[in-house]
Amino acid sequence: MNSTKKCDLLIKHATIATCSDLQAVDELLDDAAVAISDGVIQWIGSSAQSEQFSCDEVYELQGELLTPALIDCHTHLVFGGSRADEFADRLAGVSYEAIAKAGGGILSTVKATREASFEDLEMAAIQRLLHLKSQGVTTVEIKSGYGLDVDNEIKMLKVARAAGEAAEVDVKTTLLAAHALPPEYKDNRSGYIDLICKELIPKVAKDKLADAVDAFCEGIGFSPDETRQVFDAAARWGLPVKLHADQLSDLGGAGLVAEYSGLSADHVEYTSLKSIKAMAEHDTVATLLPYAFYALQEKQKPPITAFRKHGVAMAIATDCNPGTAPTTNILQCLHMACTQFGLTIPEAWLGVTLNAAKALGLSDTKGSIEVGKQAHLVHWQAHKPSDIVYWQGENPVIGVFK
Amino acid sequence: MNSTKKCDLLIKHATIATCSDLQAVDELLDDAAVAISDGVIQWIGSSAQSEQFSCDEVYELQGELLTPALIDCHTHLVFGGSRADEFADRLAGVSYEAIAKAGGGILSTVKATREASFEDLEMAAIQRLLHLKSQGVTTVEIKSGYGLDVDNEIKMLKVARAAGEAAEVDVKTTLLAAHALPPEYKDNRSGYIDLICKELIPKVAKDKLADAVDAFCEGIGFSPDETRQVFDAAARWGLPVKLHADQLSDLGGAGLVAEYSGLSADHVEYTSLKSIKAMAEHDTVATLLPYAFYALQEKQKPPITAFRKHGVAMAIATDCNPGTAPTTNILQCLHMACTQFGLTIPEAWLGVTLNAAKALGLSDTKGSIEVGKQAHLVHWQAHKPSDIVYWQGENPVIGVFK
Ligand SMILES: [Zn+2]
Ligand SMILES: [Zn+2]
Repeated sequence: MNSTKKCDLLIKHATIATCSDLQAVDELLDDAAVAISDGVIQWIGSSAQSEQFSCDEVYELQGELLTPALIDCHTHLVFGGSRADEFADRLAGVSYEAIAKAGGGILSTVKATREASFEDLEMAAIQRLLHLKSQGVTTVEIKSGYGLDVDNEIKMLKVARAAGEAAEVDVKTTLLAAHALPPEYKDNRSGYIDLICKELIPKVAKDKLADAVDAFCEGIGFSPDETRQVFDAAARWGLPVKLHADQLSDLGGAGLVAEYSGLSADHVEYTSLKSIKAMAEHDTVATLLPYAFYALQEKQKPPITAFRKHGVAMAIATDCNPGTAPTTNILQCLHMACTQFGLTIPEAWLGVTLNAAKALGLSDTKGSIEVGKQAHLVHWQAHKPSDIVYWQGENPVIGVFK
Repeated sequence: MNSTKKCDLLIKHATIATCSDLQAVDELLDDAAVAISDGVIQWIGSSAQSEQFSCDEVYELQGELLTPALIDCHTHLVFGGSRADEFADRLAGVSYEAIAKAGGGILSTVKATREASFEDLEMAAIQRLLHLKSQGVTTVEIKSGYGLDVDNEIKMLKVARAAGEAAEVDVKTTLLAAHALPPEYKDNRSGYIDLICKELIPKVAKDKLADAVDAFCEGIGFSPDETRQVFDAAARWGLPVKLHADQLSDLGGAGLVAEYSGLSADHVEYTSLKSIKAMAEHDTVATLLPYAFYALQEKQKPPITAFRKHGVAMAIATDCNPGTAPTTNILQCLHMACTQFGLTIPEAWLGVTLNAAKALGLSDTKGSIEVGKQAHLVHWQAHKPSDIVYWQGENPVIGVFK
């Protein structure tokens, strides 16, 4: 009797952190194996038991760590220009006002993004995606928000999709037209909100250009009322929402997005207990962006203890953007979430795997090593998850399976 | 008449930041060239003028940035073991006391370093040096201080030299026997200071194993009096001194090392105005260690404005060590010096070039692109120095000349 099962790829002799929950980051599977067929995890067990499989390809580790591939669930990595000069000017003591007057700040990125060709934007985005990929990231969320008009917002979303295909990274796109008020609408806020709700969202939904809708709800961004209008339009068109919420002040943004059963509230430094309870009730993820916190040298930390207590899932992302998070270094962000915010190693790991998948509505198919999930895996030069967070040096990735 | 001059290597079409002073970081030489012979910079001028040279080898850039190679002037990168578990435990809420009781902390590194073979220590140190080198670093200071007895301190210094040769990185070694009290001398502080002053320093000086002597002057380290004894011994044996000074409190350490015309006072978060004036008078460099500040989430920043005002040169280093700075990412430290401490881009660049050379007593031969200096140069995927500090992503080094 021949009981041999078939598979496309068998990975053997790995130390596996499945990341299926917090315990599964600490409790490693020793000398473990994974059988994969059609890009899906078919079986997980011991290397000894894996003898039952006959596979086209066998990949043998030497006991190193195997984890789910990482997910960067919040980026603005499609943009034109550079703000290096502005960075240098601020350090040299030039005020924000003077920089804004000289055309700096976010509107300089809007100008450069509008002026940039599709190809130039795509090339730059591919470079950023490839750097993320080199660190074990196979899924990246990318927002629009530097076009701020119909054509350029759509250009950004299309660039994001094209760059993902070219870099062979799975990209989820988010319409963030409500990122800043475009100069053309300086004296007509409601006109711009109308443009988003009545033109952009319908068009983007019909053409399936975005997987979600986001807004920047803040004193210097859009009000809770304006955010509601955007979310109502998104809901009408069947698009899930997420929100830049409570970064610099508490406008109740995290509670608002939870009310819409949003995927995530992001930044969340000033989030209130009331909002936290709403997030827990609606399963809205708290996406922490520790690099922006560091770059801005903020003082108010997100309420980690309360998120923990109320069972709010926490994700970690780079927030890659030219202003407040000029970085594609997700492993550094992992370290910063621990060092600055006090996340434990298991929390940090779930933050860039299972909970990041959840923040993108992908936790059924991604984010952990479980039977039935997509086989996006990373082979690390390490023996346990803490090794990778602890030391900031050479890239510890040996290989990525996707 | 043939006026052609000879050289070994001509580098053309570079944008050069000579880093010979603060202005020279901002005022770039466009379409510039460097002629090199016997590893020494022979001539600097325009690419057009470089026609006068006939060189064995010509390296043509396409206008990218050329800078002096970087110098990491404060590391503890020879050590055994890992403290990843301790890092994870602390994040999980285990107290420092409990960790110390369980054999953690610096003494766990001492134990692991004593037990490690020369070869294992060397292999690990080479990996760390190679990562620094990949970021454009060609000169690294390495301290002892995890041996804490004659044999193991000497082992560490020899490993440092051997690793430097293997990695083809110039290494300067520093005897830091006064790093922590070894367990054997728990009740005999003066006995250990005697061992350092009467045995270790003389032996290390005679065998030319160290280029400088350092100590950890702090409440939890050695007192100013004990530090003086170490410095007096170093002076008798002709070794320059430097000091871990004023990191957690002001014991007057920076003033003390200045009094001995020391090369540098390192950390210097709590340094007083009196000490700053002494540093200025004795040309003692302030070496900033922003990663340790970040890792410990310290609040008290070094007095940058006062250093500036009194003309104290500032260097920046990784402090690479397994406890408070588990990193070899010097470009991240450059960014942190700006973001956390408010250094300007020119100050940060001098911090890892000319002033780092000064902190090692090497500024006559290294740290800037000037005629007569060693041709340690880096070719960057960038157009100006701020590009490299601003963005934390892919390694921007294209090539290193040494
Ligand atoms: Zn964002
Ligand atoms: Zn140190």
